[in-house]
Amino acid sequence: MQQRIRVGVIGAGRIGKIHAENIVKGFPQVEVKAIADVYADKIKDWAVGLGIKHIYSDYKKIIEDKEIDTVIICSSTDTHAQITIEAAQTGKNIFCEKPIDYDVERIHQALAAVEKAGVKFQVGFNRRFDHNFKKVRELIANGSIGDIQVVKVISRDPAPPSPQYVKVSGGMFLDMTIHDFDMVRYLTGSEVVEVYANAAVLVDKAIGEAGDVDTALISLKFENGAIGMIDNCRQAVYGYDQRVEVLGTKGAISVANDTPTTVVVSTESSVTSDKPKYFFLERYMESFQEEMKDFFNSISNNTVTPVTGVDGLKPVLIGLAAKRSCEEGRPIRL
Amino acid sequence: MQQRIRVGVIGAGRIGKIHAENIVKGFPQVEVKAIADVYADKIKDWAVGLGIKHIYSDYKKIIEDKEIDTVIICSSTDTHAQITIEAAQTGKNIFCEKPIDYDVERIHQALAAVEKAGVKFQVGFNRRFDHNFKKVRELIANGSIGDIQVVKVISRDPAPPSPQYVKVSGGMFLDMTIHDFDMVRYLTGSEVVEVYANAAVLVDKAIGEAGDVDTALISLKFENGAIGMIDNCRQAVYGYDQRVEVLGTKGAISVANDTPTTVVVSTESSVTSDKPKYFFLERYMESFQEEMKDFFNSISNNTVTPVTGVDGLKPVLIGLAAKRSCEEGRPIRL
Amino acid sequence: MQQRIRVGVIGAGRIGKIHAENIVKGFPQVEVKAIADVYADKIKDWAVGLGIKHIYSDYKKIIEDKEIDTVIICSSTDTHAQITIEAAQTGKNIFCEKPIDYDVERIHQALAAVEKAGVKFQVGFNRRFDHNFKKVRELIANGSIGDIQVVKVISRDPAPPSPQYVKVSGGMFLDMTIHDFDMVRYLTGSEVVEVYANAAVLVDKAIGEAGDVDTALISLKFENGAIGMIDNCRQAVYGYDQRVEVLGTKGAISVANDTPTTVVVSTESSVTSDKPKYFFLERYMESFQEEMKDFFNSISNNTVTPVTGVDGLKPVLIGLAAKRSCEEGRPIRL
Amino acid sequence: MQQRIRVGVIGAGRIGKIHAENIVKGFPQVEVKAIADVYADKIKDWAVGLGIKHIYSDYKKIIEDKEIDTVIICSSTDTHAQITIEAAQTGKNIFCEKPIDYDVERIHQALAAVEKAGVKFQVGFNRRFDHNFKKVRELIANGSIGDIQVVKVISRDPAPPSPQYVKVSGGMFLDMTIHDFDMVRYLTGSEVVEVYANAAVLVDKAIGEAGDVDTALISLKFENGAIGMIDNCRQAVYGYDQRVEVLGTKGAISVANDTPTTVVVSTESSVTSDKPKYFFLERYMESFQEEMKDFFNSISNNTVTPVTGVDGLKPVLIGLAAKRSCEEGRPIRL
Repeated sequence: MQQRIRVGVIGAGRIGKIHAENIVKGFPQVEVKAIADVYADKIKDWAVGLGIKHIYSDYKKIIEDKEIDTVIICSSTDTHAQITIEAAQTGKNIFCEKPIDYDVERIHQALAAVEKAGVKFQVGFNRRFDHNFKKVRELIANGSIGDIQVVKVISRDPAPPSPQYVKVSGGMFLDMTIHDFDMVRYLTGSEVVEVYANAAVLVDKAIGEAGDVDTALISLKFENGAIGMIDNCRQAVYGYDQRVEVLGTKGAISVANDTPTTVVVSTESSVTSDKPKYFFLERYMESFQEEMKDFFNSISNNTVTPVTGVDGLKPVLIGLAAKRSCEEGRPIRL
Repeated sequence: MQQRIRVGVIGAGRIGKIHAENIVKGFPQVEVKAIADVYADKIKDWAVGLGIKHIYSDYKKIIEDKEIDTVIICSSTDTHAQITIEAAQTGKNIFCEKPIDYDVERIHQALAAVEKAGVKFQVGFNRRFDHNFKKVRELIANGSIGDIQVVKVISRDPAPPSPQYVKVSGGMFLDMTIHDFDMVRYLTGSEVVEVYANAAVLVDKAIGEAGDVDTALISLKFENGAIGMIDNCRQAVYGYDQRVEVLGTKGAISVANDTPTTVVVSTESSVTSDKPKYFFLERYMESFQEEMKDFFNSISNNTVTPVTGVDGLKPVLIGLAAKRSCEEGRPIRL
Repeated sequence: MQQRIRVGVIGAGRIGKIHAENIVKGFPQVEVKAIADVYADKIKDWAVGLGIKHIYSDYKKIIEDKEIDTVIICSSTDTHAQITIEAAQTGKNIFCEKPIDYDVERIHQALAAVEKAGVKFQVGFNRRFDHNFKKVRELIANGSIGDIQVVKVISRDPAPPSPQYVKVSGGMFLDMTIHDFDMVRYLTGSEVVEVYANAAVLVDKAIGEAGDVDTALISLKFENGAIGMIDNCRQAVYGYDQRVEVLGTKGAISVANDTPTTVVVSTESSVTSDKPKYFFLERYMESFQEEMKDFFNSISNNTVTPVTGVDGLKPVLIGLAAKRSCEEGRPIRL
Repeated sequence: MQQRIRVGVIGAGRIGKIHAENIVKGFPQVEVKAIADVYADKIKDWAVGLGIKHIYSDYKKIIEDKEIDTVIICSSTDTHAQITIEAAQTGKNIFCEKPIDYDVERIHQALAAVEKAGVKFQVGFNRRFDHNFKKVRELIANGSIGDIQVVKVISRDPAPPSPQYVKVSGGMFLDMTIHDFDMVRYLTGSEVVEVYANAAVLVDKAIGEAGDVDTALISLKFENGAIGMIDNCRQAVYGYDQRVEVLGTKGAISVANDTPTTVVVSTESSVTSDKPKYFFLERYMESFQEEMKDFFNSISNNTVTPVTGVDGLKPVLIGLAAKRSCEEGRPIRL
């Protein structure tokens, strides 16, 4: 039987709320004892409705609560590393939203604190827990398509962020592609050793003026000899495009988009079907529950978490290399 | 703002448990105050875990509880009508699993009690709340395909029931096709006026020996002039096949099966994709939540329920006609 | 090595021209020596361009030509039986367009003449030679899906015929469904023993006034115990809908429509793909060549033709039964 | 009305035979007067069967024949440029299989001769005439998806060539990718300005030992700002994979593989559908006819051919750049 887990959620923005609700509704053996958010007032009704007893504006109250053994870090990215360190030092298990940080040095500091404390640490790369991609990984891992030769990820958003957001986002490669860098590592089980980013501003000039790109084809070489490609765009007008294709020596695997329904309408003018599910909340909702399930299982069974600190670090390294490739117009070795 | 609703669940078999869990997790304004099951002992741990306070072996305790304003009837079919009558007489709103009864007279008695009491009454035809079929209905209702000419439902189970079950089930037309009779009424918005059942025993001889059929193509005529067909089989080895097709004067609509993933594997020998979701629990889980949502909304907003008493009666009438058509080898008028 | 075959084509309407062109271009060992059409003048340029030496207005010239060993009968239906008899009596092999006749007695006379003469005789049920349907038959025949339980054919035209045509067409069941009656016999390898036609006038009232129906769901029972359904409509606004589905004890087979391209366009408003290939000329062009190939092979190798006289007779019998079922509102035994 | 065209076919290997047969069967106004092949003896029976009067071992006989106004050059690649020059000098229109040559200087010489003579010249990039890709080009050209942002071509062969062939093939980029370089130019209507080849030996080590690669992801930048990617592999075990995807500011277009049938088989173990059409002969047969049609139309109507000399030159230049990119491990500007 599973031990009782007492959780504090830090940061109650969109993703913090999702995690809190999923835990309350889906994990009877887990109690969300407290939640902290700088705008504590605004979340009060919502938190009370969920039966959460303590609502703080200062996350330190959670760190200091000795009954709380686990934190879910959903605050702004620049606070992840610091909170991770403090939580680790007080012996708390940690689920940390991606990315750990944009600064490699601070990631190392956070991971060192985690290691020293011997607590569980999981990074929020939720797409690994998606029904489609998890199945692809299983098929690859059991040898269904032999040795991997080519891995391709298509990841396009339905609408671009504002140029203001772009300025503070760390850039497309760290903000958006980071999920895809994780995905290719997850699918291939191999490390990226070289990256070349063919990128452009084709969606919104203001994004270019903010110093970023909005469309990219990112070429990859893997340690195991395979090659890969990530196809990103900040705007696909038909919606959130989330696909992968893998070619191996014994076959190929592809994943199509999930759609709201399977309805097809045929009229005199056309045959039409559903666009992809709108955006990540619709598309990946289930995966947020699944990643929590695996996180709590790792705690209960004292096993390695499915997305480790290294898994949090590597995509940032690849993202920084992609950025440099784009700036220097050449492939970058990692 | 929604009023507080206090629910008693009667019958805690598979579907009773699903409803109880869905209500506890998904409807903060609804309290499951009590649950009754003839095997109260066996459900104790589960019910306590859900936070349900009262666990009875006698459903009358729920009927007698004046604080409980709503019952969810999930007990065996032969008790539906009686419990409906008692719940109505005590002023309780009623959600009743399908079918209300196999006896038309008893259905009329139950519906009369409901009408006299003026309580809400909804029958558990959950497939109306399925994402695919609801979309089909919307498209038809808004005129997307003009006037309906032909409606077709494919509904095949992954595995046949035991011959023992068959004997007490009311027969395939009342046990299985009843969902499809509801579906064609729902989709067309028109009544069935004639039915011809072309049926056979092609899955399991023991089903035939138990006096039933296991495979059928059921031809329908509708009040609005349209024609229709239901394709049933107690066993499709590839899984739970749940599709519809509708032809209208301005176009056609079709619905494919839902699958666990969109993964396609291509090898030297074949291109393979997922089989349909395994059975009704996997396929229709969401619809069980949706029907509850609409039921509670009908109570809160004092509106007509989306599946009325008449909607519970009509499929039974069609099912009995199909049975007779099968026995007499000719079309039967309703 | 194949013997030289000398062909006379009788009737140069749309289908006669197709056969003549296919033979000239595709069968070097076959010579189209002559062509006959009541409007000989109108086809002169076309026939000369194809290198056909003799162009007659009277088909008897072809019958009398002793060098011609094979006739392709593409004239109007009411002449098929008579020409068949004359061609058989002069020892010519015969390819006859469907139907042989609408009169069962005349079909018997024609087939008797064929049998007496011992000539080859093939009926133009070209859909048996279609890439999709041929594959379905192969899969069934080699046991891929076990014993057949349910066979379903969807066959809808893109546009209805004129009411004038309807009057002389023999009615939908003999004019249009006849192909589908052949298809179910071909796919199942079993005879239809009962038919029930659920039909209506839902496309064009003028068709009803001309004494015919335009929409039908035709229920079938087969000798081997299987059941089936044919879904016909004189007008599907989205185009020529030609599909089959077969359910067996070990699996199911389905065939989707052929489309001009595999292009899918995704925009902000929709995801659209191609409508089916427009009509039978586009959809079945290849099958017209294939049926000729098998016909000439039957002659060269002295083997049974793939669509025999009985195959020409049976669909007419089923069609007449369907007509009667429709008139009398009850299933008809064959 | 079209003028009479007299053709000489030079080279009767696989593709030469296809062109000769297509012309004989499909173009009544075109006469194949002569055919030349170094192994004239071996093609005699075939050529006589087609009704070709003159069969030569020396192509000069065709060049010298003043009645012949058009040549179809299907000989080995190293002879294309020389024969083009000679044919141009004798005023003959020229259809030349791809590539014109691997040597850029010789291509220039050939094109200069063509220009000086003012004859028609078309290169055999047949995929432009494929039903799928032609439709994609039309949709792009008419603005259906706005401005192109990303173009992607997948082109994988079902089986690798022999290492011996690889040695004389000019390498994968010039032998195989050349079609894809043409395709991206055709689809985008824009020139490639930079190429980066991420390539590896993942199919057959012997290909690597022969100095070539067998798997590649080729990144492209276009003059109009769009970016692109070509995905090549010498072996996809599931068959000939020929797809494109284009993303534009107003939508996206994708093309799936053509398959022999649309049959889907669902069993207890899986849902399977057809693999792609086997190889280029099956997949692109129709396009070989279509390119001839447009070529002869260009002659008859005195219009520009749909694949000009420049269209023959550019893919070679891109291929050479890709080769260099691969050797130097960096993007190459054109």
